[in-house]
Amino acid sequence: MALIVHKYGGTSMGSTERIRNVAKRVSKWVRAGHQLVVVPSAMSGETNRLLGLAKELMPEALSTEARRELDMIASTGEQVSVGLLALALQAEGTPAVSYTGWQVPVRTDSAYTKARIAAIDDARIRGDLAAGRVVIVTGFQGIDELGHVTTLGRGGSDTSAVAVAAAMKADECLIYTDVDGVYTTDPRIVPEARRLATISFEEMLEMASLGSKVLQIRSVEFAGKYRVPLRVLSSFTPWDIPLDEEARSGTLITFEEDEKMEQAVVSGIAFSRDEAKITLVGVPDRPGVAFQILGPVAEANIDVDVIIQNVSHDGRTDFSFTVPRGDYARVAEVLKTQVLPGMEGTQMTGDPKICKVSIVGIGMKSHAGVAARMFRSLSEERINIQMISTSEIKTSVVIDEKYMELAVRTLHRAFELESAPAA
Amino acid sequence: MALIVHKYGGTSMGSTERIRNVAKRVSKWVRAGHQLVVVPSAMSGETNRLLGLAKELMPEALSTEARRELDMIASTGEQVSVGLLALALQAEGTPAVSYTGWQVPVRTDSAYTKARIAAIDDARIRGDLAAGRVVIVTGFQGIDELGHVTTLGRGGSDTSAVAVAAAMKADECLIYTDVDGVYTTDPRIVPEARRLATISFEEMLEMASLGSKVLQIRSVEFAGKYRVPLRVLSSFTPWDIPLDEEARSGTLITFEEDEKMEQAVVSGIAFSRDEAKITLVGVPDRPGVAFQILGPVAEANIDVDVIIQNVSHDGRTDFSFTVPRGDYARVAEVLKTQVLPGMEGTQMTGDPKICKVSIVGIGMKSHAGVAARMFRSLSEERINIQMISTSEIKTSVVIDEKYMELAVRTLHRAFELESAPAA
Repeated sequence: MALIVHKYGGTSMGSTERIRNVAKRVSKWVRAGHQLVVVPSAMSGETNRLLGLAKELMPEALSTEARRELDMIASTGEQVSVGLLALALQAEGTPAVSYTGWQVPVRTDSAYTKARIAAIDDARIRGDLAAGRVVIVTGFQGIDELGHVTTLGRGGSDTSAVAVAAAMKADECLIYTDVDGVYTTDPRIVPEARRLATISFEEMLEMASLGSKVLQIRSVEFAGKYRVPLRVLSSFTPWDIPLDEEARSGTLITFEEDEKMEQAVVSGIAFSRDEAKITLVGVPDRPGVAFQILGPVAEANIDVDVIIQNVSHDGRTDFSFTVPRGDYARVAEVLKTQVLPGMEGTQMTGDPKICKVSIVGIGMKSHAGVAARMFRSLSEERINIQMISTSEIKTSVVIDEKYMELAVRTLHRAFELESAPAA
Repeated sequence: MALIVHKYGGTSMGSTERIRNVAKRVSKWVRAGHQLVVVPSAMSGETNRLLGLAKELMPEALSTEARRELDMIASTGEQVSVGLLALALQAEGTPAVSYTGWQVPVRTDSAYTKARIAAIDDARIRGDLAAGRVVIVTGFQGIDELGHVTTLGRGGSDTSAVAVAAAMKADECLIYTDVDGVYTTDPRIVPEARRLATISFEEMLEMASLGSKVLQIRSVEFAGKYRVPLRVLSSFTPWDIPLDEEARSGTLITFEEDEKMEQAVVSGIAFSRDEAKITLVGVPDRPGVAFQILGPVAEANIDVDVIIQNVSHDGRTDFSFTVPRGDYARVAEVLKTQVLPGMEGTQMTGDPKICKVSIVGIGMKSHAGVAARMFRSLSEERINIQMISTSEIKTSVVIDEKYMELAVRTLHRAFELESAPAA
């Protein structure tokens, strides 16, 4: 008997018919003798519908008070899902009970619309599991110290599932989604893209953070921190395929490098359109200037990604960084009101039409010249590189958005990702 | 400065445009210096949509566990409403915060789908009012001792509003709805029906309990118990009509009989289609038999309304009662499994196609012959009376459903309700 966490995405929960299939699949695992905790997303389209209503009414300046109300509204999508799935399980004869984030409770900080999980109390869940019930927990949400509802931001249900698995010390966390695993890159852009049977935690972290939509990045961080065995697999296989087969399908995220079976230099190509670039031209080149610029941005709870500071001329330098595209206007506002007034002679420019393309691979650690091969391939296609950022296992370039598909296809071919590496 | 509770029905909250109007109306009251607590219903259609989804998935036997999940699902409609209204108020520049039933908390028993309010903690609401915020509280729901979400049953938001007004000792509770007050009967059936400027609490209680849909009966009970000044008025007047005019509109429910301005013998005609009749034929006529029959029905949490026991022949009697039509099948099941096996020779019959029509009026107390006039009017129209039930201020008859409109029109005319009584 194992303790298993299942997570189902919005598409898998998209209709009562699909919810019934999820219930049948979960019941199959229960009949095999396992204890199940299930974290379903809101029905597909529901969160957008709710936020669409909110958008029609909300004030222009999105205050903390308004963000709190957005969470109040958006969190209901998952509450409906857990109730419906509990009913479907009960109809299958499988005892089940649902809990919201505040009922568990899943404790978070108070950063409404993008809260972070602080702790999960597992007592209530354990009690129900011991009583033979499937426990269904809302993803995406929690409760802060003041008793307000919080949400974790888009894709937060993955994080909830992994956090629950970590808190419960679950044997495995299975992320059922509308793709059947992690690919070398998005097959919609590169038809030859290949599914990986395993991927290392570090690579997955880079893939997730670089825009691969398969898993939400914080869920991967959580999985790494607490060493939660994590598997991404398809929710569109028939619910009644043999459990053994299902349990081995998809992509397993591994923690032991030695176990890594595929020794490619580069494992995958990640990309993200959701980027915007800000450049401050003529910044005084003095100690503390980076903090002076990025401190207020961080305080506004905006994630800065790639940061570049060019060499100085006459005591002045250019400072560029990228942010999520949705935060572009807000960053510009923060800089205009809080930073530029203290920096005479500095000009701000920006470009919301950029993208980031990255090569990711554990193998890069021990192979020189990988980045050079990337730059050469792009230059052969006359794609101009605007910014570069590197780590031990990835190299990212910021380029004009219109070249994104071309860059991804070029790099996929350059690193021969369409064919499986030699064992 | 007064403390005012506003309640808005689902139609008033039916679109973002209407929610914006509610926000403007509430803001007008705030600008006049009042403290406001607002209890909005779910957007019209939303509760039905949610329960429709649930119905597709739920098990046939509606266990306590399944009812708990229904409440989990249904309660989200109001949660969305309060968040949207808070945003709309903030957009108007009116500080506002929303709370769910569990956040207040509104404590209830555990009778899922028809819970009763046990207590309301007003500390949190008072704190926000003192800080100058409009407090928006979800109607229809609460939390039980085990921390599960409960709902109060259909129309429960009226009850929530009055219960909040009682707990806060509010100066007045205004129920904004899609009709502009309480009428002598439903104008859709009798076009000459007249709006009452005032109605006594007892009459309103009978009108509500007898099927007048204007106010939910438990809300009237609450108002009576805690003497909450209650006004039913239209939410479709322009939001910017003078506050004085708005505050005097609709129908006021009064508690002092002396204050009663309209001294008609009969104040109104109520009716209800939502009825079904059960008859047990040949029940042993012995002490305790009524409890033997109705005890299990009460335990199944089904409200019994009219009860008739005929005279006994040869130690056997006929026992009839009415229940809400939606509980008809469940009552039959309870009787078949728990009552009939202990009553040899007793047969069960039933009729789900009946209705109840009632005349209501404080004036009946001091006027003889009112019931006789009712029976004569109905007999002149050849409407057969199946059951009769009376109290000090109302007389109800159970008749075939198909005669309902005819009976209501006949009685409205017989008691001259189309013309205002002499002052």
